[in-house]
Amino acid sequence: MFEAKLIQGAILKKILDAIKDLVNEASWDCSSQGMSLQAMDTSHVSLVAVQMKADGFDKYRCDRSVTLGMNLSSLSKILKCAGNDDTITLKAPDDGDKITLVFEAKNESETSEYEVKLMNLDSEYLGIPDTPYSVNVKMPSHKFQRICRDLQQIGDAVTISCAKDSIRFAAKGDLGSGTVNLCQTASADKPEDSVSISMQEPIIQSFALKYLNHFAKATPLSPQVSLSLSPDVPLVVEYSITDDDGSDFGYIRYYLAPKIDENDD
Amino acid sequence: MFEAKLIQGAILKKILDAIKDLVNEASWDCSSQGMSLQAMDTSHVSLVAVQMKADGFDKYRCDRSVTLGMNLSSLSKILKCAGNDDTITLKAPDDGDKITLVFEAKNESETSEYEVKLMNLDSEYLGIPDTPYSVNVKMPSHKFQRICRDLQQIGDAVTISCAKDSIRFAAKGDLGSGTVNLCQTASADKPEDSVSISMQEPIIQSFALKYLNHFAKATPLSPQVSLSLSPDVPLVVEYSITDDDGSDFGYIRYYLAPKIDENDD
Amino acid sequence: MFEAKLIQGAILKKILDAIKDLVNEASWDCSSQGMSLQAMDTSHVSLVAVQMKADGFDKYRCDRSVTLGMNLSSLSKILKCAGNDDTITLKAPDDGDKITLVFEAKNESETSEYEVKLMNLDSEYLGIPDTPYSVNVKMPSHKFQRICRDLQQIGDAVTISCAKDSIRFAAKGDLGSGTVNLCQTASADKPEDSVSISMQEPIIQSFALKYLNHFAKATPLSPQVSLSLSPDVPLVVEYSITDDDGSDFGYIRYYLAPKIDENDD
Repeated sequence: MFEAKLIQGAILKKILDAIKDLVNEASWDCSSQGMSLQAMDTSHVSLVAVQMKADGFDKYRCDRSVTLGMNLSSLSKILKCAGNDDTITLKAPDDGDKITLVFEAKNESETSEYEVKLMNLDSEYLGIPDTPYSVNVKMPSHKFQRICRDLQQIGDAVTISCAKDSIRFAAKGDLGSGTVNLCQTASADKPEDSVSISMQEPIIQSFALKYLNHFAKATPLSPQVSLSLSPDVPLVVEYSITDDDGSDFGYIRYYLAPKIDENDD
Repeated sequence: MFEAKLIQGAILKKILDAIKDLVNEASWDCSSQGMSLQAMDTSHVSLVAVQMKADGFDKYRCDRSVTLGMNLSSLSKILKCAGNDDTITLKAPDDGDKITLVFEAKNESETSEYEVKLMNLDSEYLGIPDTPYSVNVKMPSHKFQRICRDLQQIGDAVTISCAKDSIRFAAKGDLGSGTVNLCQTASADKPEDSVSISMQEPIIQSFALKYLNHFAKATPLSPQVSLSLSPDVPLVVEYSITDDDGSDFGYIRYYLAPKIDENDD
Repeated sequence: MFEAKLIQGAILKKILDAIKDLVNEASWDCSSQGMSLQAMDTSHVSLVAVQMKADGFDKYRCDRSVTLGMNLSSLSKILKCAGNDDTITLKAPDDGDKITLVFEAKNESETSEYEVKLMNLDSEYLGIPDTPYSVNVKMPSHKFQRICRDLQQIGDAVTISCAKDSIRFAAKGDLGSGTVNLCQTASADKPEDSVSISMQEPIIQSFALKYLNHFAKATPLSPQVSLSLSPDVPLVVEYSITDDDGSDFGYIRYYLAPKIDENDD
């Protein structure tokens, strides 16, 4: 028997919003440690990994590890039937072919129960080495979202270049060019507005904005986003998942390989 | 001469919003009692009946009964030109071929006057027997709207089953199944949030969600909706129309026959 | 070197919103007096003229007059990358082929820099005689916008007729007819809500609503709009541009010839 209860059900709704347009079908691996998911996007360019720790749930029971394969857009449709203040409980019997979602409204005599069919999906879990990165930038997630959206007006790719205390996003295209510069800040008052840069060596890499804009759909999950870059390895875009009282619940990480520029100019 | 004035013109705007997508053309029957309309929807599956009592208007004059046939989407377009705080006056001479709508903004030197052509429509008024129903449920209208919208994500039909103190809405389809349970409540504090069930015998019937979602467009008219069910007769979905100070102005009622389930499972 | 800085960058965003759907490409004429633009709309029916005075900018330098031809929809796309509270600076070297836009967020360590390619455009500057008009009406701009939008539901053209102390907008079409009457007011309390009419002789003229609705996109620039009419000359629709402290910064004027009614009725 697998059962996981989340009083702040809205977190689960936001996680699905952050991955459903990128990945069609995926398997949740449920163990006593928690729930996790790893999947390539539909065009096999980027990778998304989600981790929700067992102790982040308000109730968590996983008698033995199970793999719950499902269509994420179906799951997302059903989660849209949950109110933002609903408690959400996931239930799956050990050898069933469906998962049950129970939505309970606060202080209300209303309960909804939805069942989604499970799927058998081929999956291979990629081990991602926990390497140190040349550059790590933490910045407000809404600012990252806005920059990626703005620069997609200009071009298809963004060139990220990072120096000691500033990071630069640049794009060019038919109508001209654009660059956004962010300096490191020290806003101790509002840590969620701060920009902090930790750099071992300067780096300059280009990425497809289409994917970064997909990743930015995780913005509602976290006030800050972390970008990690190193030569010749994929960029990691990480949003930590916290609940309302700020305790760590897990993360959503996106991986995207840099573009190889055929004709440098 | 027919003339009817409504200081809260927004009520008329909401009534049109509640019927214009269901019915293309219909006749308003105007008598000294008030204005009423009865029409089948365009696909001849459901029936809508509207009643606005003469004494609910701020001024009402109907020298002799008239039938005002019109295109409801034209009328709705013109009512969109009225502000939400406008006073609306309807005027029709006894043998004219058009109706005049006058919109007056509060405290403003602005008056608008629109004329809509009248149409001769075949109409037959169906007498609907005022039978007692096996089950009557009163519930928050926004909740009925949300449930119908949510379950249409799952399937085309909803099965409503009613027991002594709870009502259950269920749907199933390709992506799974969903049920919403509501228990009777006694929220004397906020009567508009209460769920009350009056039952002679348990009932279970299925209805096309497409029509229920059309009916739910009347939600802005009333905080509560009433569902009346009996074996072998159409469901009645009723929204009472009240003005700002809560006095009874009339109703909008929708009738929909239950689906006959060919292959029960 | 041309350089113009505007702390309230939102004004420039609003100006572009007011002209970009009407005019594809146009030239800004920059001189020591300020920036101005004059262009026919894409279908060569109406004319738009924009004037921004040099002393309305927070910093303005124009060593010698330059003409900056550009695609206005590209410029508008790039201005959408500026926040509403950003300071915007325009820069163009004397003989360059592009213009640079710098966006600086308030109290933030973020700077964006965009470059747009300039174009060589044929342009002829039409001299518009500064004639007295038979009628001048000043009215709330949002009301003009709403009337033009409402009447386009009814017909393609609006007939504006002006008497001593009232102005009337009328349209008719397949679904009926509509007229809106505004009386002169004297709301000394809220001058932005007042309607004032100055009339030498009564006038009645018809105009294509499609263009008036384009002009009304300037509504966010000014609480009042001025309509000037005379027999046989184009209507002038003028929005004055003011900054937050109310000082005069310039204007945007639209010119539209009256429709010649082939078959009067």
